[in-house]
Parts: sequence; C-alpha cells; structure tokens
Amino acid sequence: MELLLRRRSIRRFLDREVPLEVLIKIVNVARHAPSGKNRQPWEFIIITDEDILKRLGNARRPSSEPLLNAKAAIAIVTDPNTPTHIEDGACVAIYVWLAAVSMGLGAVWINPGGVKEMYEILGLPEGRHLHSIIAIGWPAEKPKPKRLKRLSELVHINTYGNKLKEEVSL
Amino acid sequence: MELLLRRRSIRRFLDREVPLEVLIKIVNVARHAPSGKNRQPWEFIIITDEDILKRLGNARRPSSEPLLNAKAAIAIVTDPNTPTHIEDGACVAIYVWLAAVSMGLGAVWINPGGVKEMYEILGLPEGRHLHSIIAIGWPAEKPKPKRLKRLSELVHINTYGNKLKEEVSL
Repeated sequence: MELLLRRRSIRRFLDREVPLEVLIKIVNVARHAPSGKNRQPWEFIIITDEDILKRLGNARRPSSEPLLNAKAAIAIVTDPNTPTHIEDGACVAIYVWLAAVSMGLGAVWINPGGVKEMYEILGLPEGRHLHSIIAIGWPAEKPKPKRLKRLSELVHINTYGNKLKEEVSL
Repeated sequence: MELLLRRRSIRRFLDREVPLEVLIKIVNVARHAPSGKNRQPWEFIIITDEDILKRLGNARRPSSEPLLNAKAAIAIVTDPNTPTHIEDGACVAIYVWLAAVSMGLGAVWINPGGVKEMYEILGLPEGRHLHSIIAIGWPAEKPKPKRLKRLSELVHINTYGNKLKEEVSL
C-alpha cells in the first residue's frame, strides 16, 4: 500500500543510466497486469536510445518534455481491435510505473495524444495504437504533496447521492 | 512488486463481512491514483447492501456474477467530459484493486459495458459514466497460474519490430 502512495509523477531525472536488465524486469512484472478476458492486448517498446528519447521529447511539448532528460522510456502499444484496449493499456501502464517505483526509479506517464510524429519515430505499423509512454529515470526531484479532492466529495454509500457525511480521518 | 504479482481475479468469496472502515481505507488510498493533469475525474460508490449487490450481479451475466457472492463492491464513476476519463478510471480501479489485495482481500474488475439497469440500480444521474465495478470479499479460491504471453512476443527495443532476441530468464 505504501508503494501506491509513494508513486508520484517524476519529470526530472539524474544523469545516470538505467540498465536494460532493470527495464526488462519492469516489463516482466508489468505483463502480469489484468486485461479484459486476459487478452493482454499490449506490446512494449523499451527505449534507451538517446536520440529517440530526444525526438519523442520534442514531439508533443510541453507534456512530452520529461523525455528530454529521461534515461529510458517504455512505450505501451495496444491493439485497437480489442474493445477494452484503452483500459487494458492503462492497467499495464500503471503496472510499469509501479514496478519502476518499487525499484527506486521515478517515472511519469506521457500521453501521446495520437501525435503522428511519435508513431513515425517508433516505427509503428498500421493497426497499432500508441497508448502511452512511461518516461523513466533515477529521480532528481521530490514533488510537493499532491492536491487531492476530499473523501467526502468523492464517496457515496450504496447509491449515488448518498454521500459520506463527514471527512473521515484514517 | 510482490503486490503486483499477487493480484489476481478472485470471483469466489467467503461468507464474511468486509467492514466499512476497510472499504473507506481502500478508497482513501485509491484517490492517490494518477490522472491526466491531476483532474481526478472520479467518484466512488461503496456498496455493502446485499440487495444492491445481488441486483448488480444479475444485471450483466455471466461477467457480473461475482457480485452475487461478493460482500462488497466499489463502483468507479467517471466524468465523461474529461477526455482521459477512461484511462483515469482504469488507474483508480487498479489502485482500488491493489489496495484491497494489500489488505488480504480478493477482488475482480466487472465491466458494466454500459448496461442501463446498472445505472438505475445505482441511481446514477445524467452525465456520469459507470466505468467499472470492483467486486470485493475475503478470497475463497486460489486461482491457477495465469496464462501469460512470452516476453519475447511482447518486447521491442528502441523501435517497433526490433524484438528481444530470446526469452530472458529473470
């Protein structure tokens, strides 16, 4: 549970390599993510090439900019013919992210937003969806606490509208 | 990392209550999930009412059936006006699931598939999307190891098509 709370978006990374074995270990864990009917409609591109990272980092600024200083990235590619591929891709992306955090790495989710240039840089063929790119590196920042909505705004009991009466302290 | 590997779909549950405090603790952790621009476009319905669970369990058989013996559920409701609400909802659903597992509970993701009856049972107003329902209870089964695609099928290096040459043992 501590892992879930520790995970934050890290956008600044140290100038220190992320070994390929570590990245393979991350995808090896990530492929245990759940998917609709266990279809696993995903593939991974492990990126460590600096030139590719830089080009991706410039392709959708400002949101892609963490890739300019990330030492690695894992792109999640999904099969758009699978009806649940957006949800499934998100599950495996979170798994990549949490696995990275559990190894002391920092990461952030980049939304490719359908940018064609990213497809070209990665050489994606027709019929493949670029779902997300997780930028990865050794963290060089410690983000401030996150602004979170209050539990009492978010929680209903049994039916919608039947709100939790007061803020619960846990 | 062990938590990520331990999470499985559990569809059979013991006849043993899940305390409301535990369910609130789960959503309290889950609201730390990432979302696009930290918009947190989600709400939770914590369901412990047996009649509601039974009706939901019958509403989209066979996939909704785990709700027939689950002692609780957490429905994820998202705001369809948020462009990333499907991905964001998946992130928070995985957080709910992993938080439940970390407390010794079992869970499974039910896809409501837009079934209108589920919206009615939960009293969802217009403009709210029923994203997923996580059925929760104390596990009464231990699933067999999952069939997983091989790493060598899934992993490309730097660009698509440049496959990992052999199966890596980790």
